[in-house]
Amino acid sequence: MPKIGVGVVGLGRIGQLHAEIFRTKIPNAELVAVSDVIEDVAKNVAARLGVKYYTKYEEMLKNPEIDAVVICTPTFLHKEMIILAAEHDKHILCEKPITVTVKDADEALTKIAKAGVTLQIGYMRRFDYAYQQAKEKIKKGEIGKPITYIAIARDPAPPPGWAADPKLSGGIFLDMLSHDFDMARWLLDAEVERVHVEGGAMIYDEIKEKGDLDVVTINVKFSNGAIGHVHGSRKSAFGYDLRTEVLGTEGTVYVGYRQDPMFAIGTKQGLTYWGIKWFFKRFYDAYVEEDKHFIQCLLEEKIPLITGEDGKKAVQIAEAAWKSYKEGKTIQIT
Amino acid sequence: MPKIGVGVVGLGRIGQLHAEIFRTKIPNAELVAVSDVIEDVAKNVAARLGVKYYTKYEEMLKNPEIDAVVICTPTFLHKEMIILAAEHDKHILCEKPITVTVKDADEALTKIAKAGVTLQIGYMRRFDYAYQQAKEKIKKGEIGKPITYIAIARDPAPPPGWAADPKLSGGIFLDMLSHDFDMARWLLDAEVERVHVEGGAMIYDEIKEKGDLDVVTINVKFSNGAIGHVHGSRKSAFGYDLRTEVLGTEGTVYVGYRQDPMFAIGTKQGLTYWGIKWFFKRFYDAYVEEDKHFIQCLLEEKIPLITGEDGKKAVQIAEAAWKSYKEGKTIQIT
Amino acid sequence: MPKIGVGVVGLGRIGQLHAEIFRTKIPNAELVAVSDVIEDVAKNVAARLGVKYYTKYEEMLKNPEIDAVVICTPTFLHKEMIILAAEHDKHILCEKPITVTVKDADEALTKIAKAGVTLQIGYMRRFDYAYQQAKEKIKKGEIGKPITYIAIARDPAPPPGWAADPKLSGGIFLDMLSHDFDMARWLLDAEVERVHVEGGAMIYDEIKEKGDLDVVTINVKFSNGAIGHVHGSRKSAFGYDLRTEVLGTEGTVYVGYRQDPMFAIGTKQGLTYWGIKWFFKRFYDAYVEEDKHFIQCLLEEKIPLITGEDGKKAVQIAEAAWKSYKEGKTIQIT
Amino acid sequence: MPKIGVGVVGLGRIGQLHAEIFRTKIPNAELVAVSDVIEDVAKNVAARLGVKYYTKYEEMLKNPEIDAVVICTPTFLHKEMIILAAEHDKHILCEKPITVTVKDADEALTKIAKAGVTLQIGYMRRFDYAYQQAKEKIKKGEIGKPITYIAIARDPAPPPGWAADPKLSGGIFLDMLSHDFDMARWLLDAEVERVHVEGGAMIYDEIKEKGDLDVVTINVKFSNGAIGHVHGSRKSAFGYDLRTEVLGTEGTVYVGYRQDPMFAIGTKQGLTYWGIKWFFKRFYDAYVEEDKHFIQCLLEEKIPLITGEDGKKAVQIAEAAWKSYKEGKTIQIT
Repeated sequence: MPKIGVGVVGLGRIGQLHAEIFRTKIPNAELVAVSDVIEDVAKNVAARLGVKYYTKYEEMLKNPEIDAVVICTPTFLHKEMIILAAEHDKHILCEKPITVTVKDADEALTKIAKAGVTLQIGYMRRFDYAYQQAKEKIKKGEIGKPITYIAIARDPAPPPGWAADPKLSGGIFLDMLSHDFDMARWLLDAEVERVHVEGGAMIYDEIKEKGDLDVVTINVKFSNGAIGHVHGSRKSAFGYDLRTEVLGTEGTVYVGYRQDPMFAIGTKQGLTYWGIKWFFKRFYDAYVEEDKHFIQCLLEEKIPLITGEDGKKAVQIAEAAWKSYKEGKTIQIT
Repeated sequence: MPKIGVGVVGLGRIGQLHAEIFRTKIPNAELVAVSDVIEDVAKNVAARLGVKYYTKYEEMLKNPEIDAVVICTPTFLHKEMIILAAEHDKHILCEKPITVTVKDADEALTKIAKAGVTLQIGYMRRFDYAYQQAKEKIKKGEIGKPITYIAIARDPAPPPGWAADPKLSGGIFLDMLSHDFDMARWLLDAEVERVHVEGGAMIYDEIKEKGDLDVVTINVKFSNGAIGHVHGSRKSAFGYDLRTEVLGTEGTVYVGYRQDPMFAIGTKQGLTYWGIKWFFKRFYDAYVEEDKHFIQCLLEEKIPLITGEDGKKAVQIAEAAWKSYKEGKTIQIT
Repeated sequence: MPKIGVGVVGLGRIGQLHAEIFRTKIPNAELVAVSDVIEDVAKNVAARLGVKYYTKYEEMLKNPEIDAVVICTPTFLHKEMIILAAEHDKHILCEKPITVTVKDADEALTKIAKAGVTLQIGYMRRFDYAYQQAKEKIKKGEIGKPITYIAIARDPAPPPGWAADPKLSGGIFLDMLSHDFDMARWLLDAEVERVHVEGGAMIYDEIKEKGDLDVVTINVKFSNGAIGHVHGSRKSAFGYDLRTEVLGTEGTVYVGYRQDPMFAIGTKQGLTYWGIKWFFKRFYDAYVEEDKHFIQCLLEEKIPLITGEDGKKAVQIAEAAWKSYKEGKTIQIT
Repeated sequence: MPKIGVGVVGLGRIGQLHAEIFRTKIPNAELVAVSDVIEDVAKNVAARLGVKYYTKYEEMLKNPEIDAVVICTPTFLHKEMIILAAEHDKHILCEKPITVTVKDADEALTKIAKAGVTLQIGYMRRFDYAYQQAKEKIKKGEIGKPITYIAIARDPAPPPGWAADPKLSGGIFLDMLSHDFDMARWLLDAEVERVHVEGGAMIYDEIKEKGDLDVVTINVKFSNGAIGHVHGSRKSAFGYDLRTEVLGTEGTVYVGYRQDPMFAIGTKQGLTYWGIKWFFKRFYDAYVEEDKHFIQCLLEEKIPLITGEDGKKAVQIAEAAWKSYKEGKTIQIT
């Protein structure tokens, strides 16, 4: 059985997760090396997983045992790193979003096309069992014709570090809500035609200062006539509050829940639950499936479920949302 | 359309509820009079509902416009009041339980048989939409063969007044849990063959002093081979916690829930719900259906869903439970 | 204790409900008469409740025992009936919405002001225990500063009869969603400043033919800077799906739920619940509280919780929503 | 930092899980080898994880790099394997239950005491975040005095292979419900004093033939006066249904839930959820914590949270339950 040699670059929380998964969970993949600009981090992760490490991404790209790279660095670095990987003939699994701007995405996609390598974008929710169930039920017609998409996404904490700067991360519409735009396109099998935004920086001073928003509501119209709504907040006092629903003419599918039902305490104050705090636990299996899918596409020369084009579409919608917010009107997406 | 003349005796919370329902909700019934030993109560309720009032039950029984009485007085008075009604040829809807002892039930049933009047016992849960749905699903075979009955019943507060005295009310097994015994018999279409009890007076000093228990667990074996468990507590800190489930070989039905889902607040302390506080709201429609059924049985000369015999069975199980608790062993019910 | 004499006009489902409540539940009110243009209906309801009946509204208004009328007729009749009541010096509890147009509301309010009678509009959700709990928590600051209002409202069935005609009912924005606009204004203690609508007639042919919409999403901006979203659908395959939430800087309140938790069946197909079908049961207590509040305001000469002005505001928002839908842009509300 | 060398024996589902965890998740442990009597299994797992393999347990015990073994073989092999490990001076993490009989447990514990090695029993639920939250709340007095323990445990499928034979596995009371007995002892900080069982083999013919039961209800009395109830079934048509609750004088804690709230579909049939199917996902983190705890106890020379004595107590209760079932009476545990 052939094995795909994998290198992971960017060893933050998500990069380490991918590295661990490729090390132990994907039969047809071999984790060859990890890379991070901070040597201590690279060294420790490499030691724990028993693989090589690099501090220079380009050095890792020269390793002939590596067939594919997993890019887990901050968004603003994606464009250059995708291009570099393409130039070294490496296949790419790139964490979402693909780039900060549509212009950057276009540049990257041109190089990818020229190099003929495979690019998959990491909207891992598409691999989550619950979203997949929703997709399947819709596809089978069990809710009739889908007519409304609703997404409510509330993070338990503000974006840390570089992600707090909308110039580096694309801000709330890209960094956070592009998950929900991607999901909308997939579940409804339609494009987002226009958006209308209301929003503000009402929670965190830092977010206001950096020019980002921390709470938004987005009205959406899809190419197939369906309508929708996406709401995002950078705060939810009790934990992650991520819910998606699709209303059809014959039924509704619901994904996500606002509380962890596994523990409750009832006292005279009422019955109290925890919120859902375990982001990685919630989507851990989705990450595994995502990584498996990527390797399978490489081995079978198939197009990944989430292409570079899908990645670009999400950026387009985020850019339109920013424009709608700034100009106070509906923005058509061509 | 003939109308059944109705008199309600015992104008506590439950008596007033029945009076109101008969006054406004039952097309074929005419509330003729209400009766209570406390004149003020009788007078006020009568004024509000626009009917006659009595302070002497026997006087009300002499009223020829009254075809049927609804007995809502404390349990220890039921036997005499049933017998008196039978002697006056009145049909009877008697609040649960039928009597405090099996011996009393036998006496009452003998008189009823002799008089040939109709007697219905007020286990209103049988008329609740959720329990009825459970019954229907079981009957249709949707859960296969029912093999286990589980009831969890926790009251938000100790029994008030006379009901706190087990000599007058039959104690926790009769006053509270006879609902669950009756439901078990109905849902499983089987008799309770034997019971084994653990229990104690661990919550309220008053209950201990009066010789009652405030928390019990009861192991049950049914005549059709199924097994079961009934647990009761006189306290639930956050509200009513009433749940029933029947496990079958092909599925499970669940009735009841521990929280009111209609309101929640999420803060950094977690996500907090109210308990279910509205006992009467929960079962209001069941009381209406119960009263309708009674009138319909009278008009169509049918046997009520819950007969005097059913009432007696519940008392039998409660007596066996007391015996099991006192003797520390399994008690067979003949 | 003085009693307010009440007459109810329009004996559809909601009119009968009010009549029953005033007959039995409001100590300081006396139901004097009911009125409906269909004599049989008026006669039957009157007989059941033991009061007079009229087929002509104006005749009922002449009855000196009547201090207040409850208007439960179709919306397009409200304006004339409010004016007529005012001319007869009767206080008014008018079912929502106040009128079909803002122009009509202005006319009615001018007459009301001149006559000096009390007018309360029937947005009964404000009297529901769960919404009241939300209001109280927000007021006490338990969720910090409220920054987003989300309402999801899906009816189980299309509007029947006259309500299907937007010229008579005001269509989905007024007939259905004015509840959610009113709730938004109350919970956030702010005005709706602008709206942006997406929508369509995608479910029912009849609705399309009559020129109404059956599914909409509305982006909202409030006068205090908060944002919001209201989504409505005239269909929900499994039952009522009414949910409201307010996100604050320190917490979130949730009202409503999508399923009845009281019964579930688990088989190899999964665990299945019923939807929430009991509209009247859900809000029955709210109607009682609404009616009590009205009587109390009359007795104590207080301004009702929901004034004619509140009623007009809801119509204004609905009109703006229609304009936004038709013109495809954000509409400012002055 | 010293590292504990670990060998895992028995590479079924649970053995592979432990091997993976020790390989990647426990900083102070080094997975040295794995062992299974089936060479192919041992070889594949070893290759995947990059460690040595053995087909003979005793050979692995001779490896001086191994400080501790994790025993994941069928229950009936535990006694001999524990004794052998003790004789080789290896510390032991033994999957639950410790042995099939109390007599065997005594033998094993005697050897353990003599060898002075550490033995931890794998009741992993004690390391689950939800059960730990329950424990902490009870300890802090947040539910007052705990007075009732209720456990409902329904497996989605019958025990496979050897576990179907009660002589090898201890049957339903040991193989399945010893989890719930152990949890009861821990949460209530009390011993099980007596048990009373009802039960039967009503679901699976194979279980009946082998002499095991597939559905039971157990009434329990604890040494501190509290009471309890444990119900187990080898079938739940829609998925795992594992729930535990402790009622206290001031509140109740609930652990577990009957459905996966993450996906639902509402159609005219109702609103349908999946059951909880992911046993390993549910308790994955608990297994990690369990393994971490074991290594920490070895490094810090501490007594594990679940000792051999705890393991024996669970066997004692299971034996008493069998006796109660067979003799039809309450069995006192000395």
